[in-house]
Amino acid sequence: MISKNQIKQIQALHQKKYRDQQGRFLVEGIKTVKELLKANSFKVHELFATSDFIDENKNELSKAGIAAVEVSERELEQISTLATPNKVLAICRYKEAAAVVYDFNACFSLYLDDIRDPGNLGTILRIADWYGMETIFCSPSSCDIYNPKVIQSTMGAFLRVNLVYAQLEKVITENKIARVYGAVLDGKNIYTEKLENGLVIVGNEANGIGNENRKLITHPVTIPAHTQGGSESLNAAIATGIISSEFFRQLNFK
Amino acid sequence: MISKNQIKQIQALHQKKYRDQQGRFLVEGIKTVKELLKANSFKVHELFATSDFIDENKNELSKAGIAAVEVSERELEQISTLATPNKVLAICRYKEAAAVVYDFNACFSLYLDDIRDPGNLGTILRIADWYGMETIFCSPSSCDIYNPKVIQSTMGAFLRVNLVYAQLEKVITENKIARVYGAVLDGKNIYTEKLENGLVIVGNEANGIGNENRKLITHPVTIPAHTQGGSESLNAAIATGIISSEFFRQLNFK
Repeated sequence: MISKNQIKQIQALHQKKYRDQQGRFLVEGIKTVKELLKANSFKVHELFATSDFIDENKNELSKAGIAAVEVSERELEQISTLATPNKVLAICRYKEAAAVVYDFNACFSLYLDDIRDPGNLGTILRIADWYGMETIFCSPSSCDIYNPKVIQSTMGAFLRVNLVYAQLEKVITENKIARVYGAVLDGKNIYTEKLENGLVIVGNEANGIGNENRKLITHPVTIPAHTQGGSESLNAAIATGIISSEFFRQLNFK
Repeated sequence: MISKNQIKQIQALHQKKYRDQQGRFLVEGIKTVKELLKANSFKVHELFATSDFIDENKNELSKAGIAAVEVSERELEQISTLATPNKVLAICRYKEAAAVVYDFNACFSLYLDDIRDPGNLGTILRIADWYGMETIFCSPSSCDIYNPKVIQSTMGAFLRVNLVYAQLEKVITENKIARVYGAVLDGKNIYTEKLENGLVIVGNEANGIGNENRKLITHPVTIPAHTQGGSESLNAAIATGIISSEFFRQLNFK
């Protein structure tokens, strides 16, 4: 059972303003919450679940030291952001940004310049996870990682990949990045250009990379199209997937 | 001005049932409709637009032989499927499926096995357009191409890429396809395997390729992940983008 007041407080976390105030966000669904319990990368503040979820995950919950609050399907619907809630909702604490300096001579990573669509951001975190990026970066204007739609579409990747919000110039300076690749329309062919470790900038869905950040690119690259006069661009997440794939291939299988 | 009855009839086209009955679908937004007028690949049945759109596109409209119906922003909102309608909405006729046989020794294409998400289908059409696929195929159970969300997310690619709904076995037999690649979890590494022209099967978002279709795969392939224990899979459209990219690279830039 949860009180009306609790319901209101949880519903408030559907909005960024209240998430930021409280430093808390929601994680939903059996699969993702089970990964959350195992991963130990975010502190679980509270967990609400139906009785069958609690029964089936007794061990995992006690191992994680969590006293789950039992709720009915009806109550879960009230606090969930999903059209069809899936047995469990956890409230987690924000993670503090770790001040780590990465060696960009030994890895490649992404900088997202103003990615706005939650589905795109979530999907890109999944790509980063797939290709072994520990940390990726994005502009402060980009979509909020704690947006429930982002968390949902990462399919658990938010547990493994750090996302750092910072200005590009700062990221480059602090990490002493030598090679700054940028996905543009008139760069060098990614398939024939020798790609090395470094940072890859991906631009906004509609406008690409902003003018200020464009100046910081040292290696402009392009995914060549088959057809002139076809699509003008690929979806931002698709382009990120293709470029990440090509970096990964050249660095590991060439 | 449009009548209440017209509004009702256009709103009916938001649903597949009525689209199929009438053989008509909606195309919205300045950019896509302008491409539609130029492309000449779908017959425009009716076009509703605000006065400024009509003024600015007089020549294009008269060249295409279309008498646009002027509507107010308010009326456009009533007939649109978009939260923020964008000046113009066209009603187009379905295209008849052309009975063409493709030479799969000379091209590669996709078969989508039960892709359900409209955004994924639209994005995949954009990928197909980018990499020069004239026609792609999908299972009859896949998402409807005339779904307004699909049309919207293709960003015009539906004008250039044909989508044929057919059983996989029929597609393979009719087109005498020798190499049937399938994106699975335990196939050969796409980066090191020699990829040749053929058909590539991409599976459903949650369940992958169905059992019956799995039997028809002659060349199982996999996108290798960097990390064991990371994400179990990539988003279906991302996987399609990466695999298409690797086929395109190997066939053109190796």
